[in-house]
Amino acid sequence: MAPRPITLLSDYGTDDEFAGVCRAVIARIAPDARVIDLTHGIPRHAVRQGAAVLANALPFTPPGIHFAVVDPGVGGGRRGVAVRTANEDRVLVGPDNGLLLAAAERAGGVVEAVDLSDSPFCLEPVSATFQGRDVFAPVAARLALGADLDEAGEPIDSTSLVVMAPTVPQLSPERILAHVTSVDRFGNASLDLTRRHLSEMPLKMGEAIGVEAGQERFEAIVDVTFEGVEPGRMLLYEDSYGSLALAVNRGSAAELLGLSPGAEVVLRPG
Amino acid sequence: MAPRPITLLSDYGTDDEFAGVCRAVIARIAPDARVIDLTHGIPRHAVRQGAAVLANALPFTPPGIHFAVVDPGVGGGRRGVAVRTANEDRVLVGPDNGLLLAAAERAGGVVEAVDLSDSPFCLEPVSATFQGRDVFAPVAARLALGADLDEAGEPIDSTSLVVMAPTVPQLSPERILAHVTSVDRFGNASLDLTRRHLSEMPLKMGEAIGVEAGQERFEAIVDVTFEGVEPGRMLLYEDSYGSLALAVNRGSAAELLGLSPGAEVVLRPG
Amino acid sequence: MAPRPITLLSDYGTDDEFAGVCRAVIARIAPDARVIDLTHGIPRHAVRQGAAVLANALPFTPPGIHFAVVDPGVGGGRRGVAVRTANEDRVLVGPDNGLLLAAAERAGGVVEAVDLSDSPFCLEPVSATFQGRDVFAPVAARLALGADLDEAGEPIDSTSLVVMAPTVPQLSPERILAHVTSVDRFGNASLDLTRRHLSEMPLKMGEAIGVEAGQERFEAIVDVTFEGVEPGRMLLYEDSYGSLALAVNRGSAAELLGLSPGAEVVLRPG
Repeated sequence: MAPRPITLLSDYGTDDEFAGVCRAVIARIAPDARVIDLTHGIPRHAVRQGAAVLANALPFTPPGIHFAVVDPGVGGGRRGVAVRTANEDRVLVGPDNGLLLAAAERAGGVVEAVDLSDSPFCLEPVSATFQGRDVFAPVAARLALGADLDEAGEPIDSTSLVVMAPTVPQLSPERILAHVTSVDRFGNASLDLTRRHLSEMPLKMGEAIGVEAGQERFEAIVDVTFEGVEPGRMLLYEDSYGSLALAVNRGSAAELLGLSPGAEVVLRPG
Repeated sequence: MAPRPITLLSDYGTDDEFAGVCRAVIARIAPDARVIDLTHGIPRHAVRQGAAVLANALPFTPPGIHFAVVDPGVGGGRRGVAVRTANEDRVLVGPDNGLLLAAAERAGGVVEAVDLSDSPFCLEPVSATFQGRDVFAPVAARLALGADLDEAGEPIDSTSLVVMAPTVPQLSPERILAHVTSVDRFGNASLDLTRRHLSEMPLKMGEAIGVEAGQERFEAIVDVTFEGVEPGRMLLYEDSYGSLALAVNRGSAAELLGLSPGAEVVLRPG
Repeated sequence: MAPRPITLLSDYGTDDEFAGVCRAVIARIAPDARVIDLTHGIPRHAVRQGAAVLANALPFTPPGIHFAVVDPGVGGGRRGVAVRTANEDRVLVGPDNGLLLAAAERAGGVVEAVDLSDSPFCLEPVSATFQGRDVFAPVAARLALGADLDEAGEPIDSTSLVVMAPTVPQLSPERILAHVTSVDRFGNASLDLTRRHLSEMPLKMGEAIGVEAGQERFEAIVDVTFEGVEPGRMLLYEDSYGSLALAVNRGSAAELLGLSPGAEVVLRPG
């Protein structure tokens, strides 16, 4: 049977060999498994952004094994886990810090979970600081080859998994309180709002709305593309994953508004 | 039949998941197709530089499907296209903004072209801002699996493709007006001149020439390697793709002269 | 017979197409060989750091062909080489400037070496400035397909290979003189010291030691993880490759101390 594909997402960056060594460990164990790098450019330790990016990307990936490491707690007490999803038999592998769960929800939620702390698949000795190489990569590779989840670690109750509380936007006719879920390198900031919220709110295409973040006050145009907006102007548009997002045509909304994942933004229609 | 290889070139960068999601879409459709990342580091929206890099790299790639996205006009009126080349049966897939044509010329020119606007291979719904994922990646994957070009889109006349006017150097005995075609991360600036121009001009190895760009005036040494030139000195050399290029030994010619793709440079022999 | 896997390490960066063109050349020659990018982010021309990273990564890679290019002398007199290791039948391919030898030592040392200057596997013409594409990539691909080493180039005595003198730490009870072997993007600086040196020296877990580099004087805590150390404090810890390393919790030790590979650091216990 052909091995299952493995996707990789991390905050390892591309300057160092960290991601490469994980690819190497996988290739030693599962030489025929296809490896797909989603990105290693998640900002360092930005768990919430990593979770958002993984959740957005997952539906576009082939069902398989999904390695994800954004892990400020490496070397501390947090455990590593692997979780199986209800739909498509996907398995997500990474730290138990909430990184995996938004993506798992996109595939029907978690139906099985194991603690990897004493996984027989780990490379020995397990280093305190590079569990991607020593735990998550070899576990992902063995699962890709067909190992059962309960061979990879100790079964745990999925309700014991660390949950990152989802942000919830607050909607009223005059004021929408939203939160930034991720920021891309162009400074476009995705919010926890979708087109549905747009239709519930008195936001109309082409109209101006107020945007407030911290002490900053701006005006944005509601638009679907960057076409109708002058360079330098801010717009509220639907991004390619279906979230509403703030952008500045040929500029950076995140910089202008001082936004990072988790930040609050207030929108004032009309 | 084995699927054809797919090369990728874009301005998506490596920080975000954009390139990774395109790789994922391809892996879903064509799990056995080899994917070769040429680069995702084309400066944002730098169509001319993307075209030069793709044209330079193409002869070194296996004939197959060549995905290329540098696309300031995404979401606007421009169409996506796929074009087949006269030689080696290569198919180039990307926006109709001139990005693909210099490379296609290297393979004998375009013999067949289709408009991908209503391609049955697109992911639905097609987003306004991420056509790499929704149009070009799935089209490339289906072509790699063996689909005919006219299954991918509506046949169009290849003379209707958007052409980026090639720059033409002007040569006179005292003055050569050349143009920058690309700049690499070391600040080396390739020109629209080749060794042939060198032989036509009174440029001699080891001699000094004047270099003018905007208000800047410098002197460069004509040399083939960096060996004969002191650190900090500018040289005019033949780069690895056979173009004449300006460099500063252990420095940046592009920074010193304020050069970016398309910029004019005047060379004054002797 | 399946082709052998090929790992890649270089200072090409990810902005330009250099690494991508090497991948393309390999794919033309050995379409079924697995290619594993270790990193292309070695700082430009940092041979010592490249050698350290390659040596650290090698044991985690599948035995095969190992392409490595960090090459300040490209275009000059230095030769390209391929060397076979005593253990695991690994072949390392790259410039003869010491880059390959620390890694080769990890696999038992060099048992066979060839000079690639007139290799029949080179792409013609060989450019002066891009030997990764014209020499090392095609040689690696042909070796991956099963070519014998002596088909790739002219046999040479392995004692003629350029050696980069290893640094040697000096230990006395009051003063340890160590050297930086590599610096990662977080500013963590690995030293030419291991846990063994730690046990030989009067360094105790949790105790403070003096750290001197150039004119800088700091205090560091001896610890195995970042857990016991306040943000902003420096620590001496065992990194994931078993070397002792200096780090600043949520900061950059390299920046604070002005460290780059090869730099001297003095540690003063208690």
